[in-house]
Amino acid sequence: MTDPLIVRNLVQIKKAAAQVNRAGGTLAANKASAIVAACNELLLGQHQEAFIVPAIQGGAGTSSNMNVNEVIAHLARRNTGLLVHPNDDVNQGQSTNDTYPTAGKMALLELVPALLEAVALLSQTLLAKADEYHDAIRVGRTQLQDAVPTTFGATFHAYSNMFRRDLRRLHVASAALKTVSLGGTAIGTGLNASPFYRQHIVAQVNQQTGLELQQADDLSDAIQNVDVFPEFSGALKALAVNLNKFCNDLRLLGSGPQAGLGELHLPARQAGSSIMPNKINPVIPEAVNQVAFSVIGNDVTVTMAAEAGQLELNAFEPIMLAKLLENERNLSAAIKMLVTKCVRGITVNTELCRSEVEQSAVAATVLAPLLGYKATTQLIKEAMATNNSVRALLLEKQLLPAATVAELFSAAVLTGSSRVTAPAQATGR
Amino acid sequence: MTDPLIVRNLVQIKKAAAQVNRAGGTLAANKASAIVAACNELLLGQHQEAFIVPAIQGGAGTSSNMNVNEVIAHLARRNTGLLVHPNDDVNQGQSTNDTYPTAGKMALLELVPALLEAVALLSQTLLAKADEYHDAIRVGRTQLQDAVPTTFGATFHAYSNMFRRDLRRLHVASAALKTVSLGGTAIGTGLNASPFYRQHIVAQVNQQTGLELQQADDLSDAIQNVDVFPEFSGALKALAVNLNKFCNDLRLLGSGPQAGLGELHLPARQAGSSIMPNKINPVIPEAVNQVAFSVIGNDVTVTMAAEAGQLELNAFEPIMLAKLLENERNLSAAIKMLVTKCVRGITVNTELCRSEVEQSAVAATVLAPLLGYKATTQLIKEAMATNNSVRALLLEKQLLPAATVAELFSAAVLTGSSRVTAPAQATGR
Amino acid sequence: MTDPLIVRNLVQIKKAAAQVNRAGGTLAANKASAIVAACNELLLGQHQEAFIVPAIQGGAGTSSNMNVNEVIAHLARRNTGLLVHPNDDVNQGQSTNDTYPTAGKMALLELVPALLEAVALLSQTLLAKADEYHDAIRVGRTQLQDAVPTTFGATFHAYSNMFRRDLRRLHVASAALKTVSLGGTAIGTGLNASPFYRQHIVAQVNQQTGLELQQADDLSDAIQNVDVFPEFSGALKALAVNLNKFCNDLRLLGSGPQAGLGELHLPARQAGSSIMPNKINPVIPEAVNQVAFSVIGNDVTVTMAAEAGQLELNAFEPIMLAKLLENERNLSAAIKMLVTKCVRGITVNTELCRSEVEQSAVAATVLAPLLGYKATTQLIKEAMATNNSVRALLLEKQLLPAATVAELFSAAVLTGSSRVTAPAQATGR
Amino acid sequence: MTDPLIVRNLVQIKKAAAQVNRAGGTLAANKASAIVAACNELLLGQHQEAFIVPAIQGGAGTSSNMNVNEVIAHLARRNTGLLVHPNDDVNQGQSTNDTYPTAGKMALLELVPALLEAVALLSQTLLAKADEYHDAIRVGRTQLQDAVPTTFGATFHAYSNMFRRDLRRLHVASAALKTVSLGGTAIGTGLNASPFYRQHIVAQVNQQTGLELQQADDLSDAIQNVDVFPEFSGALKALAVNLNKFCNDLRLLGSGPQAGLGELHLPARQAGSSIMPNKINPVIPEAVNQVAFSVIGNDVTVTMAAEAGQLELNAFEPIMLAKLLENERNLSAAIKMLVTKCVRGITVNTELCRSEVEQSAVAATVLAPLLGYKATTQLIKEAMATNNSVRALLLEKQLLPAATVAELFSAAVLTGSSRVTAPAQATGR
Repeated sequence: MTDPLIVRNLVQIKKAAAQVNRAGGTLAANKASAIVAACNELLLGQHQEAFIVPAIQGGAGTSSNMNVNEVIAHLARRNTGLLVHPNDDVNQGQSTNDTYPTAGKMALLELVPALLEAVALLSQTLLAKADEYHDAIRVGRTQLQDAVPTTFGATFHAYSNMFRRDLRRLHVASAALKTVSLGGTAIGTGLNASPFYRQHIVAQVNQQTGLELQQADDLSDAIQNVDVFPEFSGALKALAVNLNKFCNDLRLLGSGPQAGLGELHLPARQAGSSIMPNKINPVIPEAVNQVAFSVIGNDVTVTMAAEAGQLELNAFEPIMLAKLLENERNLSAAIKMLVTKCVRGITVNTELCRSEVEQSAVAATVLAPLLGYKATTQLIKEAMATNNSVRALLLEKQLLPAATVAELFSAAVLTGSSRVTAPAQATGR
Repeated sequence: MTDPLIVRNLVQIKKAAAQVNRAGGTLAANKASAIVAACNELLLGQHQEAFIVPAIQGGAGTSSNMNVNEVIAHLARRNTGLLVHPNDDVNQGQSTNDTYPTAGKMALLELVPALLEAVALLSQTLLAKADEYHDAIRVGRTQLQDAVPTTFGATFHAYSNMFRRDLRRLHVASAALKTVSLGGTAIGTGLNASPFYRQHIVAQVNQQTGLELQQADDLSDAIQNVDVFPEFSGALKALAVNLNKFCNDLRLLGSGPQAGLGELHLPARQAGSSIMPNKINPVIPEAVNQVAFSVIGNDVTVTMAAEAGQLELNAFEPIMLAKLLENERNLSAAIKMLVTKCVRGITVNTELCRSEVEQSAVAATVLAPLLGYKATTQLIKEAMATNNSVRALLLEKQLLPAATVAELFSAAVLTGSSRVTAPAQATGR
Repeated sequence: MTDPLIVRNLVQIKKAAAQVNRAGGTLAANKASAIVAACNELLLGQHQEAFIVPAIQGGAGTSSNMNVNEVIAHLARRNTGLLVHPNDDVNQGQSTNDTYPTAGKMALLELVPALLEAVALLSQTLLAKADEYHDAIRVGRTQLQDAVPTTFGATFHAYSNMFRRDLRRLHVASAALKTVSLGGTAIGTGLNASPFYRQHIVAQVNQQTGLELQQADDLSDAIQNVDVFPEFSGALKALAVNLNKFCNDLRLLGSGPQAGLGELHLPARQAGSSIMPNKINPVIPEAVNQVAFSVIGNDVTVTMAAEAGQLELNAFEPIMLAKLLENERNLSAAIKMLVTKCVRGITVNTELCRSEVEQSAVAATVLAPLLGYKATTQLIKEAMATNNSVRALLLEKQLLPAATVAELFSAAVLTGSSRVTAPAQATGR
Repeated sequence: MTDPLIVRNLVQIKKAAAQVNRAGGTLAANKASAIVAACNELLLGQHQEAFIVPAIQGGAGTSSNMNVNEVIAHLARRNTGLLVHPNDDVNQGQSTNDTYPTAGKMALLELVPALLEAVALLSQTLLAKADEYHDAIRVGRTQLQDAVPTTFGATFHAYSNMFRRDLRRLHVASAALKTVSLGGTAIGTGLNASPFYRQHIVAQVNQQTGLELQQADDLSDAIQNVDVFPEFSGALKALAVNLNKFCNDLRLLGSGPQAGLGELHLPARQAGSSIMPNKINPVIPEAVNQVAFSVIGNDVTVTMAAEAGQLELNAFEPIMLAKLLENERNLSAAIKMLVTKCVRGITVNTELCRSEVEQSAVAATVLAPLLGYKATTQLIKEAMATNNSVRALLLEKQLLPAATVAELFSAAVLTGSSRVTAPAQATGR
């Protein structure tokens, strides 16, 4: 079915149009009142069963718009006996081509705050995790190979920061949805809309809805070119990319419990296997991954539908709106679930992580500025071949004073929060 | 919710498993009977409200499989008082990892015949159109520019033939779905499935369902690698490509009614505009286009989910199955609608098409073998500059005998169904 | 091969690093001078044959970075005899993980101005076309069906406006590329980079290049999360969507010359057919379409590579950079070609377009506010059935005064640039 | 530039056409000889600098075809003095629309054997690895969580089997490329090709090249509908999906060396870091991943170009061919590199893997058929909580005879290669 949010916003537009057309003198007051009353009934949620047009439809939304026009005209006639006409009265000053995509944008915009809230909550929750595990040292990994140490403080902070970029992108891309084509009627020339209507319709819709829509400067462009939909889809896709990266990392760091990395413990949510007793799976991140795959695929659908527009209209807005609304809802729900069912309850296996750093040969990278890359490489090779630690070897070979070694291998130096007192600077390499 | 077809086929597997496990001596006869009876209730469509797991789920289908195990165990216990256990009895010899994707493949396979039927019907309907308009000559167009003439016979035949390739692809790709991993349990090693079960389970499922499933030779591979899903998705995508091409052509050839190509008349389905009286739009092809865009986007989702599998399992089968089932249903419905609501009622504006060929300068291409490319180019340029016809010019300039000209410009020669008697051969150019 | 722009910007970073490390006291002055001199040779374009690493490479760019380190060290040693070490000296304070993606972003940023310039030129050229054909009335078309009239002024203006949105998107998305991770070394902790280096390296690079890079607040995030690449790719993709829409429209409006729409004449560029004399094809828009398809496909590649990053690094930056640089170059070249070889030379067949409007029944939409939707529909049906014009019917039936009819069907009213004096307002419908 | 393989195959077609046209009496023998001689020069690799048309081109390949026609005509004239005309003689019986895509298909087909060979080699190499490590037991993992045990024999066999499906898909999809449109000329009607030419041209090309091309039954369809390109692209994409899965697994199993899974050792290929001494990265699988991402993105480009065909021609074949040829070459090279530089040298850390199985609590799944799912769950929980092994607990609690425990936990039973003597069957659960 046509999305209820689109229907609802079409009704908002019809209501606004009736009021503006009355004020402009092109619609009789009693008809206008009848239309407004009918719209108010619908906005209260009544008569939803009257909206029967499928979401994927030919006709660029005409069926949905006419469905709304006719339901309103029918209600108005039934309530008042006035001969309210669906096209001449309810649709006065309008065309499907300006009302349907505007209602679609309004629907998309209505779902944005929940999505922003979810992403902000995720980012904040991760920031709190970063505080909680500020000093939990762990082995960094690049290309899945052991790298120099870091902390879970830095790790969670990086995720938190990443999702803040999504907030920025969503703000920018959703702002572009606020430019609407009301007043353009069929192809942007505004034929059959009165000058009064064109001037006042957007303000009236804003007054009713609190949305901050703006009328496009170029209404022909606004009707025929829909690049703001792929733009918005692209912002959702970038969020999906980040969610995938994050959930993949969670699943990897939480792998185990015995033969995996085991650095993180994700809260258990359900028995994980019908055959393997006691198995627990990362079901929440897995569900989020799947939502992300869906958003990325939908972006291709939106892209193809957008570039398929021809001349004065894009007839494929219904599928774009359906996919974008699906994305918004799925992402909001998935991210909220991710926060409440998974991220908040994550704990770090700090002992294991610390122990891995202590045994990590690659931590010896810290020696390179003093000993040089080549000598350090030899030292690490020797340590690993002899199953010895680099620190032990260093002391054994008396390559550096014990105090320097201790300072170099301190967590603070290794993870970058402080620097060695007299490193390579002294040597002036 | 988990697709009802997946649930239904999970029940088929549970029923088959109970029977095989009884025959193999690993399940008590009374328990097996209770399970089979419970399955039969469910297969009659009862208790559907008990299946509450969402389609997009973490856990690789474990929730859906356990939901089914538990509903069956509950029914069996309620009906008989026996202590039927969801894991030990209903799930005996099984794991989510072999049952869930098998049930998914069974669901996909169940929808294939309707899709094949729809595509075959489309191809046949187009063949009938080719017969109907066998001799309806029209201007061919390459790169949207006027090209040499053809007929609507050739045009419709080409579409018909194109869709026959989709039948081939769907046959091949759906055959690959018949290889299943039943008997592999968790990771293909078959742990906890009895040898008897492994040997007989697939045959039992086939007996119940009429599907011609085969047990994979390599069950580890069959459980962890899901490339047959992108393969099947690829076949659906190729069909979507052809549907797009076809519907785009219909919309273009049917453009007008006054300021478009106007060669085809698509049957009117509804008033086309809320503002423009009497406008009729190609709503059926437009709806099919949107389904096609959706199938192509879903292919990306399926692809990403498939390549995200790790080690012994792909945890992202739920989204793949959801998207593929959606594709099958949408395509079948869209194609049937396309045939019944549009293609069957198409008529050709034969007069217009013939008249365009008669005025077409590019038809003079037929002269090139006799006059040469360069001289023919000059002749066409002159005809177009003087608003004259090439035929008239030819006769005026006495470049060829009148009878030859008449033969050359006959429909049969122009559209390739016959050849000129003595063309360039004689000249031995 | 690794893109020369990436190599060049790696050299810029190496040069900057040597200067900062000297100033910070961690690199001997003579070594620093030798490195700077070697870099200057390379920046002059010498020794390009020394850079031999393929564009698609494993190792997250390590091969490219080490190739540059080694060439510089070699040149420095050869020129001065000093023992300049590729890792300890040239790469001091750096890692592939901060230098390679930074050089990649610098390369992408260097190509942005040419792209912005091309898009701006396209938009301006279209604006000039809009002026040139401000009053050229033509039949609008929605869903490829005849709609109410518009002008080529409105048409070209709409395209011009559409591409202005691309300028906005490119500005925003490229600004996000300016945040770089220099100073983060391997995983953002900055291990082995001196505090002095971390503080001054970005300013030094900016001074050398004029780019306005900013050091990321969170260097761990900046190294591991690459969502700004799909973000930038998304902006390029939106541009590709608009180019496709525009080029498709050009090809459609230019179809013919006899049996097509024929409203536009695209300048001929070459003989269009090896077999059909005198055929001219829209080769420029066709080439642009293909670039657009490529950009859209590359977006999927960039997306997949971006979400495949794991833990502290994304190892797949090489393919992202290769595809994005390809997109930028192809788009800039294609758009410039589109402007100079096609758009500038477009002419409108104003006679044909005007005549189509005059015959267009759908122009009678203008009557609906006065006569009502239903009566107008009947009138249009009657006109088309009797092969009559609506205007003639109107006068014949004396439905409206002749002066009103004349005003209604004036170009100014039909295309929305003025309004009828006393429309529906008077009737207070 | 137009791909040299396309140019070469255009030359093959021109040579064949000259011979057939001579035999059919439509081309003078001396001209035909001159054309054949010119073609032979070109087939020897001479004059490549004469082919100057870019790969991405408007005009559906006309520029490439005419470039070849003109070079051949020029050589023929230069060599013999005969007035050989590029259109009338070299291109006789042909159009770009049948020759260019046929040459493209021939080019694609030429690259198929190397790709098949590479995939077969990969599959065989993995089969040999499966033999080599037939009994190397390891912990299976589903959803990255510890699962029941398997062996590297089963693991490598599964990969080997997976790639065998790619061989099947490549065979089927490349076979579809063998149907060509030679003889159809501009739009499939065969205008200006003699009946003799139409009948003999494909056989002549086959004789020259050894390719087994077949002439399409419906030449109009064969010229305008290009779904075999997305079909072939889909087969390449499925291969890319499998390569990604395989390379991701290799990188994961080879993670470490200390703080990763460390089950596999991938042969070291280069120093892995400019900053971290001794680091070794999985550069080969990483490069293959990037090729796979590129193939998947290119599939979207091919899909969009394919569905954009209009009426009698698809003008976007150049980009499809360019992307498919790129895919074939990149995949062949990447897979060969993967085999020779990585897979062959892989070794298994058998000690670590065996030790992990021995400590693995989830191996106790084998107890479920005897003790029930619930009791087994409790046992595992107790073992993990007390840091005890399940085997020890079992014996301590005397839940099963020692001999049964030993049998159950044998590698053969755990990995499914044999079954316990008297499992659940006896209990008739």
